[in-house]
Amino acid sequence: MASDDAPIALRMAERICAYSRRDLTPGALGRACAAIADTIGVALAGLPEDCTQVLLRTPGVAVAPGRALIFGTARRTAPLDAALVNGTASHALDYDDFSSDMGGHQSVPLVAPLFALAEERGASGERLVLAYVIGIEAMIRLARAVNFVHYDKGWHPTATLGVFGAAAACAHLLGLDARRTATALALAASMASGLKANFGTMTKPFHVGHCGRNGLLAALMAEQGFEARLGALEHPQGFLDVFNGPGLHDAARIFAGWGDPWEIEAPGIALKQFPCCGSTHPAIAMMLRLAREERLAAGDVARIEILVHPRRLPHTDNPWPRTPLEAKFSIQYAVVRALLSGTPRLAHFEGEAALEPEVRRLLALTTAAPHPDMPADGPNHWGAEVVVTLRDGRRLSRRVAQLVGRGGDDPMSREELWAKFRDCAERGALPAANVAPLFDRLLALAEAADVRDVTRLLERPAPPRTDARVPAPPLARPERDGSRPEAIPRH
Amino acid sequence: MASDDAPIALRMAERICAYSRRDLTPGALGRACAAIADTIGVALAGLPEDCTQVLLRTPGVAVAPGRALIFGTARRTAPLDAALVNGTASHALDYDDFSSDMGGHQSVPLVAPLFALAEERGASGERLVLAYVIGIEAMIRLARAVNFVHYDKGWHPTATLGVFGAAAACAHLLGLDARRTATALALAASMASGLKANFGTMTKPFHVGHCGRNGLLAALMAEQGFEARLGALEHPQGFLDVFNGPGLHDAARIFAGWGDPWEIEAPGIALKQFPCCGSTHPAIAMMLRLAREERLAAGDVARIEILVHPRRLPHTDNPWPRTPLEAKFSIQYAVVRALLSGTPRLAHFEGEAALEPEVRRLLALTTAAPHPDMPADGPNHWGAEVVVTLRDGRRLSRRVAQLVGRGGDDPMSREELWAKFRDCAERGALPAANVAPLFDRLLALAEAADVRDVTRLLERPAPPRTDARVPAPPLARPERDGSRPEAIPRH
Repeated sequence: MASDDAPIALRMAERICAYSRRDLTPGALGRACAAIADTIGVALAGLPEDCTQVLLRTPGVAVAPGRALIFGTARRTAPLDAALVNGTASHALDYDDFSSDMGGHQSVPLVAPLFALAEERGASGERLVLAYVIGIEAMIRLARAVNFVHYDKGWHPTATLGVFGAAAACAHLLGLDARRTATALALAASMASGLKANFGTMTKPFHVGHCGRNGLLAALMAEQGFEARLGALEHPQGFLDVFNGPGLHDAARIFAGWGDPWEIEAPGIALKQFPCCGSTHPAIAMMLRLAREERLAAGDVARIEILVHPRRLPHTDNPWPRTPLEAKFSIQYAVVRALLSGTPRLAHFEGEAALEPEVRRLLALTTAAPHPDMPADGPNHWGAEVVVTLRDGRRLSRRVAQLVGRGGDDPMSREELWAKFRDCAERGALPAANVAPLFDRLLALAEAADVRDVTRLLERPAPPRTDARVPAPPLARPERDGSRPEAIPRH
Repeated sequence: MASDDAPIALRMAERICAYSRRDLTPGALGRACAAIADTIGVALAGLPEDCTQVLLRTPGVAVAPGRALIFGTARRTAPLDAALVNGTASHALDYDDFSSDMGGHQSVPLVAPLFALAEERGASGERLVLAYVIGIEAMIRLARAVNFVHYDKGWHPTATLGVFGAAAACAHLLGLDARRTATALALAASMASGLKANFGTMTKPFHVGHCGRNGLLAALMAEQGFEARLGALEHPQGFLDVFNGPGLHDAARIFAGWGDPWEIEAPGIALKQFPCCGSTHPAIAMMLRLAREERLAAGDVARIEILVHPRRLPHTDNPWPRTPLEAKFSIQYAVVRALLSGTPRLAHFEGEAALEPEVRRLLALTTAAPHPDMPADGPNHWGAEVVVTLRDGRRLSRRVAQLVGRGGDDPMSREELWAKFRDCAERGALPAANVAPLFDRLLALAEAADVRDVTRLLERPAPPRTDARVPAPPLARPERDGSRPEAIPRH
């Protein structure tokens, strides 16, 4: 093992190279498979989104020959392209897992490039899962060294840190030695990009596809013998200083306790259970519990009171949402929907779902307020209570102090995972017969001798409309003969 | 024209869209063609370099179908890939033009993507030249807004600003409207990357290919309807603040005097005449002048005194260079070589050229020192004088106060351009019969009805070795059964 004054990329690389399948603890394995399955699900759900579809018809994208599938289509292409498109799709709905330490989403930078590479080379599921766990480790540990300066400054950490995670994971899957793995990390430093200014546009999910592609490219170039400066992280004009500021990072945090336990075991992965703002989730969970345990029917309800930690309310107190976006940020709608339909689904945040008459009737009975017992400055700010008054006057309530169903000590159950996965796969129009077997195979991914045995279930056999190639258009601007348009004066 | 408080990207886009071929002044046209020809030349010279060759064999690179040529080969691919590879090749030797205002190289981010796109769509030479001039304008004006904070911080401006230039130029060639052009710029903001920490490695030229590809991708995505935030430059978490620091940029400098005159006319393009450190160039020019005008022969020379501005000396005072790199940074070798061989060529900085006996004999007669009449803090720091003492005791000298042959008021002559171009094309192994016609066609590029009529001269018909595809190797790391290697303890 290199000494503490060896280049950071090399010290990271040695650790990346040091682990084999024997190091996959059952906890890490189970969480990794759940997170990977969830990411594949949200990628399918993101396929019809404009960001994915526009990318698929951009000239030169996903036309290189290869074995890597564009999930949910019949189209196969080179791994670099599949990483770009599937990565973008997987973040299109912002429905993928996240990490508080990273200040971003941890699986999406890794899953698309790893599947693409594994399909191309015929890797086993176990090797993919191991590479994923190691990629998460490298990425989150780097995040600990730079956050939250990095996040606050305006970088999109999912992309600017994700590119390192993707490079690390792909280097491991390729079996690169420490020097080449370090080179991939140093190359990733020169490809790190993505600004929060583009949040709220198609470019946010594109960041994810772009970083995954770049991380994979870095690993493939390093495999072929490309060279970069191994000190590119700690160099005065390198990643740590330039992206974060001199003195505003602590590289020692990358290495202290690496892999012991795995980041994916503790703090673990925070999956997103419902397709709406995370601040509404504890209240949704309480309404689901109340409805299930008390066998509530919407017709019995006279009043719904939502009491949550005050931090959850400013952006979700939206009693009369109309559009899909407003519905995603309405705690009243989310709780009403949970009463009415059970677990909220993607379709509940599309079209005119928020305008259904029964929804509007229930919204009129619903209030939201800060919980009087949950101080704004308390240590836990994810508490929620839902109180339902029935027509017969009875008051029923459920209360939770923590975020539920998001990983760590309280992960989503297999049934909850499945409900989300099925919903996502349906939105992606995956053949119905494939959905359950695919889910099962993904949760047991480490048992697959060849990842392609799993990914063939991700194919939609008939060439879908979304695969149609648009021929390169002719140049649009005519050769102007006259002077420049008068409306645009010269400067 | 949008008001001053409209998004910066939109205001830039309106100006980018406002110009047509009528706005190409003869000065801009001539300089553009010279710079483009020079860039094509150095791209040919960079083809055999490792950075280009490793990239060409990286799986998934340059295998997408398309009409864009990898210069100097028989390989055609999609424009995105050609932009990546040709852009990298064009900066491989650091022999391409530069801009003091940019703190970087101005043509290489633009030429490769523009040729690739023009070949794919069948654009005229005039449209390519116009797009190039406009791309330079957008890029250098943005540079004025952020330099030299941007440069000093550690960014590689050729890449981090070049991506905007490439996006602007390609958007213009595609004929995008102002809104889509602005979107391309906003997308470019999220793809800007490249750290000076990787200088001195293959990754430096790769930055250029990567930024050119990304700028082209941004334009192609915008053409297809992709969306980004038009305010992505001035947003508090956007390009200006995040890359440079709040308050450390001045966006007004982007717009003041746009296109009047064109940046390429004043200050113009600084071409690099000799394939060695720029600090040696004035002294080389003086030796060439002396040798030509006085008909010097090496055998007549008893002593060579090189007197230069003190800033030029610390990194070039290398009286006994042995390796190619040392030779590139030896003012003594450069001047001796000019006496011995005329204009220094690429081959003079390769292999054992610096070890030739006649070179060593002349080096023993050569000294270099700061010029006593050129103060260190004077306004011009590119002066040089060469004094030769002949065996008959006569002393001859030539002196210059300014950098010569680099553009602006004193551009390289057509003969000097040609000498460099031929040297570069030979290194790239272009068929000899193509070289002169190609040079002529490039200097008259605006007259080509179809750029492909010019680029077919850039093809090397026989499939060269460098085009061989390496099949994807199997995964290298065996599935380990044992525990991790003992040499790498757990952390």
